[in-house]
Order: sequence, then structure tokens, then C-alpha cells
Amino acid sequence: MDTASGSPATLGSVDDALARAVELARRGPAWGPNPRVGCVILAPVRDAVDGAAPGPRAVLAEGWHRGAGTPHAEATALAAAREAGVDVRGATAVVTLEPCNHTGRTGPCAVALEEAGVAEVVYAVADPNPVAAGGADHLAAHGVRTELRPTAAATELTHAWAASAAAGRPYVILKSATTLDGRVAAADGTSRWITGPAARAHAHEVRAVVDAIAVGTGTVVADDPALTARHPDGGRADHQPVRVVVGHREVPAGARLRTEDGGELVHLATHDVTEVLAALAAREVRTLLVEGGPTLATAFLRAGVVDELHAYVAPLLLGAGPGAVGDLGVTTIADALRWRTHDVRRLGDDVLLVARTHPSPAHPSVQEA
Amino acid sequence: MDTASGSPATLGSVDDALARAVELARRGPAWGPNPRVGCVILAPVRDAVDGAAPGPRAVLAEGWHRGAGTPHAEATALAAAREAGVDVRGATAVVTLEPCNHTGRTGPCAVALEEAGVAEVVYAVADPNPVAAGGADHLAAHGVRTELRPTAAATELTHAWAASAAAGRPYVILKSATTLDGRVAAADGTSRWITGPAARAHAHEVRAVVDAIAVGTGTVVADDPALTARHPDGGRADHQPVRVVVGHREVPAGARLRTEDGGELVHLATHDVTEVLAALAAREVRTLLVEGGPTLATAFLRAGVVDELHAYVAPLLLGAGPGAVGDLGVTTIADALRWRTHDVRRLGDDVLLVARTHPSPAHPSVQEA
Repeated sequence: MDTASGSPATLGSVDDALARAVELARRGPAWGPNPRVGCVILAPVRDAVDGAAPGPRAVLAEGWHRGAGTPHAEATALAAAREAGVDVRGATAVVTLEPCNHTGRTGPCAVALEEAGVAEVVYAVADPNPVAAGGADHLAAHGVRTELRPTAAATELTHAWAASAAAGRPYVILKSATTLDGRVAAADGTSRWITGPAARAHAHEVRAVVDAIAVGTGTVVADDPALTARHPDGGRADHQPVRVVVGHREVPAGARLRTEDGGELVHLATHDVTEVLAALAAREVRTLLVEGGPTLATAFLRAGVVDELHAYVAPLLLGAGPGAVGDLGVTTIADALRWRTHDVRRLGDDVLLVARTHPSPAHPSVQEA
Repeated sequence: MDTASGSPATLGSVDDALARAVELARRGPAWGPNPRVGCVILAPVRDAVDGAAPGPRAVLAEGWHRGAGTPHAEATALAAAREAGVDVRGATAVVTLEPCNHTGRTGPCAVALEEAGVAEVVYAVADPNPVAAGGADHLAAHGVRTELRPTAAATELTHAWAASAAAGRPYVILKSATTLDGRVAAADGTSRWITGPAARAHAHEVRAVVDAIAVGTGTVVADDPALTARHPDGGRADHQPVRVVVGHREVPAGARLRTEDGGELVHLATHDVTEVLAALAAREVRTLLVEGGPTLATAFLRAGVVDELHAYVAPLLLGAGPGAVGDLGVTTIADALRWRTHDVRRLGDDVLLVARTHPSPAHPSVQEA
């Protein structure tokens, strides 16, 4: 059976099973074209008196998706059940995301579940991907009960992927590391270090879970970054994001981007953000971290495509020096680019503010500005 | 007995008594020339075998300081004991701050404790006030056992007061409310609202616990602030800080500072920060909140007297507009003004970063820059 040690033999409720499915999903990679998905197959409810709360149900099988090219979570769980000789007819499949209805690198999960005789499918997030959606409809049309049962944890798990799938472009995270007065460097250009080791380590953790990092050619020339994802001890993270350089200038021959091992180097000789996003979408980039400098950040902001801000703020004041962003075309406070704060955390002496665009029209976001 | 309902009959240890003393101290006002102090008098340890941990001890009396002109915490506790006919000979007085050795508005507490026959005084913070210090020495010279037993809570309770007493000037808190790119207003000067209601409510809570608020004349003319401390419902806080206007321009006759009830209005027609602090120290101002604008903030920063920053940061970007501070004379990152983060909290969509100068020479602070 496709489970790790510590797998529960029974789960008390469908909500417990959804929480377990999220836990399984998190074992998969956050990067890559596919979302992280977890699946738990619960034994049929037997002898349940109408209206009575059913007791704990046996876990027949579990599975999670290990990344593009490998079987989906549902297929993995079904295979595990088959291997263990477990009958899933009449069972409930609990999945973090709506089963796909699409033959891509693997066959459609909705069909696999239905053909296996599963009686009920509970999923936490509807598939926003126009290509793969329709799984629940297929199941319902074939007599399988379906229930959309949203949970915050499952929504968060798929947040960036779902936004990317819905928009048909990478989910854009803009990173900044500034003083309290919004400077990224002193007047003489020195900037090491504005933020402390905890903030820098966190920024590397983020690199290790995104598909790509982008910088402008100005930053390449000025800072010569390697754009690798490293552990605090200097070791390389398992996953290295694609390194994207935006702009017309050449990446110098001796640049660390060329000499240091890391993700693939992609040079996009354009200043058009839409072109950049289209090129990266074509490469199946779902999450893009824009690291700077100010020119590139400003271009992404003006294009209205920044879905998430990662603002590292250090308790320093400089009073002068370049800012994180340039002219945004905003002249009055009502037109300010606004996000909603998603998370705040202290990292040593620094603060990380994670903010996102907000879908509600009652709260103007950058997309709507 | 001078206790509120819920006073403990016994306390398990001296540390418990210190925690209780801090709790009592917090009932006193955070503003005013005197520190908040709490005192618990514990019954003598009887029948204690040498080396054996004593059991819970009876609380003979409690007291806390209610502000300048009223008895000190120790005097209050001793009076409560007398009134209740409780014998404190041989007892342990547990106090958040070293008992004073000074006849000011009231007599020296060290003498009162010694004369009452207290056998032992445990205090958490040494008195940094050169005028009042020496209480522990007096007690020791008169055969009373003394113990300095620092606790984080007691240190925090007296932090601003102790820094002010040691420096002989008000403890300066600089407030800013900025976008993520460090702007206090848009290019056209509009700034309502950068921060949200939770941050604004918090700023009013701070006003209600400081002795004075300062703004420059430029801010008076531009923003016409009332500088009152208000509750979110618009009602006035019990304590209204002195309202200090710094600069040569007159406060206009119709200014809200003149027409709205609030703390006393003090106009200091100078640009010299040292003069401002001396004038306020002479008025027994211990905590001063500098609210703006950029010119005044910059003057305080350049004078190296900002002890604490309250930086409210909103998830907005403007790309242009005035910053919170002007030229600080810093040209390279090594000379940045640096603080240590004391507290980070989320207030709605905004973040409040509270940072302080750090006493350790290993960590350069603004005073040492």
C-alpha cells in the first residue's frame, strides 16, 4: 500500500480525511506544472442508520502526486488498493482537488474512480484548469455522488497553482528587501546586508519552491547574482528554479549565472511583461518569483500582474538611496496599488509581509486598479 | 487591605510574587513622571529546613503606585498591612523596582520598609534614577537582606521610564505610517488612509499612555491634527498627552490644536532637538511620541535620540510621494541607522514593527552611529 509509516488505519470523519489528504499532498513538490494533490479512500459506510453520524471509517488506501509525469494522487491510491487486494467498490474517495477529466501525461482520474466502483467523491477545491475540469460532472453523470467541501488548508495548498491555471500565466510573486523607508540600497549603492540571515534564508526557501526566478539585466550587471536556491550552510536545495533574465543586454560571460550550477538560464530579450509571462507559461512555469531590480519590479507592477508580495522589511533607516519600485503612474492615494495581507512573520530583526491581491471587487486590488 | 478582588491568599514562590507585583504595577498609569511599581509582602518563612524549598507563603499585603503625588507601592502595601493589623516583621517585600532612597513627594520607601521590620527585599529592577537610587544599599546597611532578581516582565514594565531616568531626557518614540515603499503620502499629498482602522486605533492607544506628542509646525499647517487620544468610537481616552508643537511658525487661531479639548498645548519655537528635550524634561515628560512630519522626524533621528520606532507599514505601493524621513546624512549601508526589533504585530492588513536601540556595543545602534 502506497502509504508512509504513521498512516491512520481509520479516520473519524470526512473532514479528518480531507485534512489527511492535505497532509499527504504536502509531500509532493510545490514546484512543477501540476498541483499538489492528496487522496484518501475510505471504506463504505455500512450499517449506518439514516441520520446517525457514522463512526470511524477504515482507510482503504492513500496516495499523493509526486509531480508531472508520475501518476495522480487518485491513481496512486487506486493502485495501492489494487496491489493490497482491497476492494474499493462503494468506497468514498476524499481528494484535495477535483479529479481531472483529462488525458494528459496520465489518464483521467474521474474515469478511473468511476470504473473502480467508488460510490462517492469528496473534493475540497474545484479544478480551475479549463483543460482538466469537468471531473465532478463526469462522475455525477456516471452515478457517483460528488461533494465539493472546501477547506482553508486545501485552498491554500492549491492557491498559486489555481490562480495560474485560471489566468493562463505564471502566478507572480514580487520580492523586495527594504529598509523601513523603502530603500533597497544606500546612496552609494551598497546594500549588503539590509536584511539579516533569517530573512535571507527564508528567501532561499522560497526560491526552492518556485518554478522560476526573474531579474532584469541591470541587476545581473550590478549585483552578479547566482539565483540559486541554497540552504543556510551553503548547500544547494534539491530543486533549482529556472533563472530568467529579462532585458536586452547580454549576460556577461563571467557572470555567476553562467558559471554557477543552478536552474536553466533563460534570457528573454524583451521589456514586455506580457511576452515574458507568455514565454514562461509556454515552458509550464506556474510560479514566478520576481526578485528585481526596481525596473523589472516596476514593469510587473504597472502591468498589474503581481499576485503576491513578499516584502522583507528591516528596522533600518537610510534617508536616501534607490527605492524598491519606480514610478507606478500613481499620483493620488485612492489609486495606490493595494494588496491584502496574507501573513506576517518575524524573521530575526526583520519582518516578512506576505500580501496578495484580493478577489473581492469590494477590495480594489492591483488587477482592478 | 489595599487589594482588589482576586488577590491571592498565598503565593508559591518569590517568582510568583514578582509576577503578581508586575500585575499590580500594571494597574497604575503608564504616563506621568513616576514608574509603575507593584509590591507584594510575603509572610516570613517559618520552620523552613535549611535547603528545603519553602512551601506557599501567605500574602500579608499588596500595593501599587497610582501616579505622582500618591504613595509609592511599598508605602501603600505597608499602610494596607497596618490597617489590617498585620505584622510585617520578618516578612519579605517583593517589589518590581528597587525601593527609593529619596524624599520627594513622599518619604523614602527603603526607610519605611526597614523601619517596619521587613527582613528581606527582593526587587526586579535596579533604580537607574541617580536622585532616587541607593535604596538597596540603605536596606543592606540596616541589616535587611536584599536580592536583585531580574524578570523580563518587570524590566519591560519600567523600560521607557528607566531609559528616561538614566538619560535625563524623555524616552523618544518615533512613529511612522508608510506604504511598503516608505511613502507617507501620494505625490499630490493625499494620505488618507494609508493604514487601516486597526493601526489607527493602536496609534491612539499609544497616545493614551505617553506623556507628550510632538509634531512640527509644518504638520500643524498641512494636516491640522487634534493630537488627542481617542477610542475607536470617537470618545476621548482618560489620559490626554501634552501636545507639543516644534518650530517657529505660529499655530493658527482656528487650528484643531486650539479648538479641540486635549492635553495642554506647548509651542516650542526652536528647531533644536536638545532644547526640545530639555524643555520637556523640565516638565517631567518621560515618554515623548514624535508623530511627524518628516522634518521633525529627521531632526530627531539626526540627533541620535530615537529610542524606539513604531513603524506602521501598509501593503500598498505608491512609487512616488514624500517619504517618512529626509536626508539622514547616511551615504553607505554600514552607516544606516539600525534598531533591534522588539515586537511585530499584525493590525488588520497593516504591520506594526516596534524596534528599539540596543544597549550592546556589539550591535551598533543609532546612539552609537
